[in-house]
Amino acid sequence: MSTAATIDKISSIIDQNKDALIARLAEAVEIPSVSGSAKYRPQVVEMAKWMAKSLESIGCENIQFKELGNQKLDGQDVGLPPVVFADYKSGGAGKKTLLIYGHYDVQPANKSDGWNTEPFKLVHDEKTGRLYGRGSTDDKGPIIGWINTIEAHRQAGIELPVNLKFCFEGMEESGSVGLDGLIENEIKNGSFFDGVDAACISDNYWLGTKKPCITHGLRGIQYFKLSISGPGADLHSGLFGGVVHEPMSDLFQIMSRLVTPAGEILIPGISDLVRPLTDEEFNRYQIMDFTVKDMDDATGSSTTIADDKEKILMARMRYPSLSLHGIEGAFSEAGTKTVIPAKVIGKFSLRLVPDMTPDKVVELVEKYVQSEWKKIGSKNTLKLDAEPGGKPWLADPNHWNYEAAIRATEKIYGVKPDLTREGGSIPVALTIADILGKNLLLLPLGRADDGAHSTNEKIDILNYIEGTKLLGAYLHEVAAATS
Amino acid sequence: MSTAATIDKISSIIDQNKDALIARLAEAVEIPSVSGSAKYRPQVVEMAKWMAKSLESIGCENIQFKELGNQKLDGQDVGLPPVVFADYKSGGAGKKTLLIYGHYDVQPANKSDGWNTEPFKLVHDEKTGRLYGRGSTDDKGPIIGWINTIEAHRQAGIELPVNLKFCFEGMEESGSVGLDGLIENEIKNGSFFDGVDAACISDNYWLGTKKPCITHGLRGIQYFKLSISGPGADLHSGLFGGVVHEPMSDLFQIMSRLVTPAGEILIPGISDLVRPLTDEEFNRYQIMDFTVKDMDDATGSSTTIADDKEKILMARMRYPSLSLHGIEGAFSEAGTKTVIPAKVIGKFSLRLVPDMTPDKVVELVEKYVQSEWKKIGSKNTLKLDAEPGGKPWLADPNHWNYEAAIRATEKIYGVKPDLTREGGSIPVALTIADILGKNLLLLPLGRADDGAHSTNEKIDILNYIEGTKLLGAYLHEVAAATS
Ligand SMILES: [Zn+2]
Ligand SMILES: [Zn+2]
Ligand SMILES: [Zn+2]
Ligand SMILES: [Zn+2]
Repeated sequence: MSTAATIDKISSIIDQNKDALIARLAEAVEIPSVSGSAKYRPQVVEMAKWMAKSLESIGCENIQFKELGNQKLDGQDVGLPPVVFADYKSGGAGKKTLLIYGHYDVQPANKSDGWNTEPFKLVHDEKTGRLYGRGSTDDKGPIIGWINTIEAHRQAGIELPVNLKFCFEGMEESGSVGLDGLIENEIKNGSFFDGVDAACISDNYWLGTKKPCITHGLRGIQYFKLSISGPGADLHSGLFGGVVHEPMSDLFQIMSRLVTPAGEILIPGISDLVRPLTDEEFNRYQIMDFTVKDMDDATGSSTTIADDKEKILMARMRYPSLSLHGIEGAFSEAGTKTVIPAKVIGKFSLRLVPDMTPDKVVELVEKYVQSEWKKIGSKNTLKLDAEPGGKPWLADPNHWNYEAAIRATEKIYGVKPDLTREGGSIPVALTIADILGKNLLLLPLGRADDGAHSTNEKIDILNYIEGTKLLGAYLHEVAAATS
Repeated sequence: MSTAATIDKISSIIDQNKDALIARLAEAVEIPSVSGSAKYRPQVVEMAKWMAKSLESIGCENIQFKELGNQKLDGQDVGLPPVVFADYKSGGAGKKTLLIYGHYDVQPANKSDGWNTEPFKLVHDEKTGRLYGRGSTDDKGPIIGWINTIEAHRQAGIELPVNLKFCFEGMEESGSVGLDGLIENEIKNGSFFDGVDAACISDNYWLGTKKPCITHGLRGIQYFKLSISGPGADLHSGLFGGVVHEPMSDLFQIMSRLVTPAGEILIPGISDLVRPLTDEEFNRYQIMDFTVKDMDDATGSSTTIADDKEKILMARMRYPSLSLHGIEGAFSEAGTKTVIPAKVIGKFSLRLVPDMTPDKVVELVEKYVQSEWKKIGSKNTLKLDAEPGGKPWLADPNHWNYEAAIRATEKIYGVKPDLTREGGSIPVALTIADILGKNLLLLPLGRADDGAHSTNEKIDILNYIEGTKLLGAYLHEVAAATS
């Protein structure tokens, strides 16, 4: 059978299974695997077992619970949920091996937060074709998509064209505690990740609501704490205003020199690190399914710095930014207080893009802040602390892994997907790309309006079912692609 | 008898009464008249009765409890403590009439706050000659000083040379609720304050710990809230950093343009309002008992903008200042958070000096902020709110009221007092000076290190006893002065 015919066959079985696939997702959503709260920890473990059982039912081998020790949570000492490993070994030699990462834990949810339905019950809204429930799109729908497509292959009697290695985590929504160490351990010769050719994560979203996308980049981050201290204690502005160098005045001087209201970063050397824009890349922004109105809807305002779509998209995806987040130690409540704060800590961060690195950014910021500080001539004391940084990530979208995903999307959705980059960071993506040293693909199933961490989280049935087909098609295109 | 001989006689009786005067203060300190807490309200009223009884015992007439209605406090509806009025009518016509203001309520105090002794028990430290206890210096010591000196006159058989009108408040530490209205009411013809020639308040402190001072000025205040809003809700800096005009970037631009790190106010027109320095005034700073080290001790640091005494004193007393207090709505906790706050409210205030007025300052700040805002070119929305302002106050130190206080100080302490101005505001002083339209004198009894609103509040026995003498001497010098 041709790749196209195989994909068609699998897809038609998935269509036939539709009700059962929704029922499978419903079963998973009913397990409130909230990783952020000690009282739900048994349910997170229950969800790990549910995953293991499902993986076993579709023929996975070598299913392992990788234990990560304990953590302190809500004042209790609780065991961390296991990372679930599983192999799907395809018959025959010379097949590619893909690493599939996903997470089976979810964000907290209470009906009283503003949900229209019970969050831990999958509710099918017939009118909109949506499935509401916590985890429906983040990330239970996508990880169950993998199970669904393998099941369809078995029902069709079609051998999977690649080997799969599953890595399903139960702590993603709570900082992926312990994951880095585990992956580093399992990358050695003969360990679990040995022999992986590329990786795929389905844990993000389309840029909008209509056109599928594939994501090949993420911005990194470097967070800073700028402390300025002087007086031994907070002072009264009546007695000391005008007398002393006020840490707040100093802080406002320094922080106002970091970025302009138009978002221009004033730190010398930063813009030199930004990889130049190519015509190929610019063309991606031009064809992206996105409007200024989409951004205004997302911010609930008309406050974009740029007025055209391409500039807005590039500001999010391919340029660095610097945001001032707040001040620790100053008066922050409602009302009036005539205090001169003795020690204030300004918080700001930069979003990093290739070829910025946290180290280089820290060096440039430190140099600039110190040189501006000298100009200020204050008797106060300045200290700049850099938090551990996260590198930007950018994958080559011309890699066979991407070519396969693009072709699979074209087959299932009949449209070339947008090649997007995201403005935020997904630490686990960075970990996997970094430690593995292989091409990583982000292949979203859900839409921008799914409300992943919000109330009334949903996945459209279309995205769940076509997404399941997409994962299957992707595997065949991977097999067909020239590596 | 000459004025000098009369003062000597009164003073020697005060010396003889020393133990009884300390016992009287001890009695008052034992009544925890904390106005800021509903549970102490009965004790505040008890203190009002104690005052009335004491005033009666020294021959005051027309003792009245002026009721001010109720207030909401700690979730309860409680009665406001009364303002205690009393007349001391001296025999004979043509005598001057002084208004004496003081307050019988105190700041909260708990031993667990860090007191070395029980706060509501007057403890005599024999080694240092200090009397520790809440209210000892603020303001029970000074108001009892008036009672002590009248008592001494009666014991000496010497007629008081002036008429006195006492106004003792029980809400000073809690915003003087209701006082303004009462004073305005009682200023009319035939009402309590009718016929007052000048006023005296003993509710502040020496500039240092060694040399007495008399205070003839206070800075005013104008507080501002600068709101900048844009996005409909807080945004994530990963998704929106670089895309939108961030209210925080705008706020830092505006607020950093208000004042330099060296305390220079950048608002055009402000410095033009500051009354020029005269040689007579400059000389006052030169002779003031004050060193740079005193200021460093007070701030717990070496952060004065100026390096010489006169400039430091003038910065506090005769020049305006602008302090940035904080931001409401931004990230203010410990740790890191990558938020773009949707609405931030910057808080800042100016300390005002003659001839600045709140109205004029609001006008200049509004004009400047709006013109800087236009330069910024942000799509966000700015709003500037001015709180009710307080005018600066400056009395003529060549008035007979001051001449009398200066001569009295020279007699009792053997030194010419410093003529100081204070950097903060004392709202009640402004009210009295304003509504009365008469010369007001601030005649402190305690020292800079008394810790009025702090733990281990104290008054030195020397200040309490010599202060009592000073009040007596002042009355005679007032009588002797040519009006
Ligand atoms: Zn997720
Ligand atoms: Zn999530
Ligand atoms: Zn006071
Ligand atoms: Zn006080």
